[in-house]
Amino acid sequence: MPTTRSRQKFRVMVLRIGHRIPRDDRVTTHVCLTARSLGADGVYIADVQDRELVERMNRVAQEFGGNFTIEAGKPWRSTVNEWRRGGGRIVHLTAYGLPLPKVVASIRRSGADKLVIVGAEKVPGEIYGLADWNVAVTNQPISEVSALGIFLDWLFRHSRLEERYPNARIQIIPTAHGKNVVRN
Amino acid sequence: MPTTRSRQKFRVMVLRIGHRIPRDDRVTTHVCLTARSLGADGVYIADVQDRELVERMNRVAQEFGGNFTIEAGKPWRSTVNEWRRGGGRIVHLTAYGLPLPKVVASIRRSGADKLVIVGAEKVPGEIYGLADWNVAVTNQPISEVSALGIFLDWLFRHSRLEERYPNARIQIIPTAHGKNVVRN
Repeated sequence: MPTTRSRQKFRVMVLRIGHRIPRDDRVTTHVCLTARSLGADGVYIADVQDRELVERMNRVAQEFGGNFTIEAGKPWRSTVNEWRRGGGRIVHLTAYGLPLPKVVASIRRSGADKLVIVGAEKVPGEIYGLADWNVAVTNQPISEVSALGIFLDWLFRHSRLEERYPNARIQIIPTAHGKNVVRN
Repeated sequence: MPTTRSRQKFRVMVLRIGHRIPRDDRVTTHVCLTARSLGADGVYIADVQDRELVERMNRVAQEFGGNFTIEAGKPWRSTVNEWRRGGGRIVHLTAYGLPLPKVVASIRRSGADKLVIVGAEKVPGEIYGLADWNVAVTNQPISEVSALGIFLDWLFRHSRLEERYPNARIQIIPTAHGKNVVRN
């Protein structure tokens, strides 16, 4: 049965590094939509203020419900340092890391809040050392968008695909052929 | 143990509809990389010839191995009609469809080849009627990139994340902290 979110004990935030306007407008939007729809609590866009993106995502969150948050502009290093000081741990998604099936259980076992770093193009090399887990969603060239979606799906034990969101103004009703949308 | 691909009996091709140059260059590249790394046999880019994208993806396939193919330019309707004439069936990924957990077993049970349609922005309305399965990877606004990745991961029973590819010139060796790449 679909239920409301936040069954796991820890928070999950996504840290998007390397976002550039306008180059990454669409891909970072895909990162944010994926984070929200697969159960992350929110996204930090590192280093760059992008008001349009923040407004667009806040609109989606208002219309489709839930408690998703988005913030932009803080240096990635401050976010990482604050996260650690609060007792949180760091996951970095990279094709160079250890295979997701090998490490997902240890990530789930840790009750700490998780910051999931996804880069655009290259990330600073030190992030490989900072991360508690460098996780590969396949050791192949892949997209950070699908890597994030698959990672969250596994992290939450494939349980979030029929989630219902509190306070949704717009709700899509699953349909075999066609479109069925309810506005509250 | 990682093994070589194509354990399922059916082929899986992805049909990318609505690709526009340059608007979709990066997102369609992410679609193609996701298709390849999660075990699809190839991608058709509908209606638009995009030599740069085709060359880029052929280069990835040569370097990282496997038998991934990419073709661009044929009208989507011709691809769908030929697919059907060959006995294949059609999956359309859309937030309006039936939840993946509810339909994945019936898709797997069908031994027919699968054409997986992913749109950019809106797709022609008739595709909802043409599709054998309209499948929602969450009934939320999401990215077609992560929807495709999660769909393929489920279709292949979460078995493709440690795949090794035949004839790879470049191989990434999984590493806890850092980068380890072997060139053959």
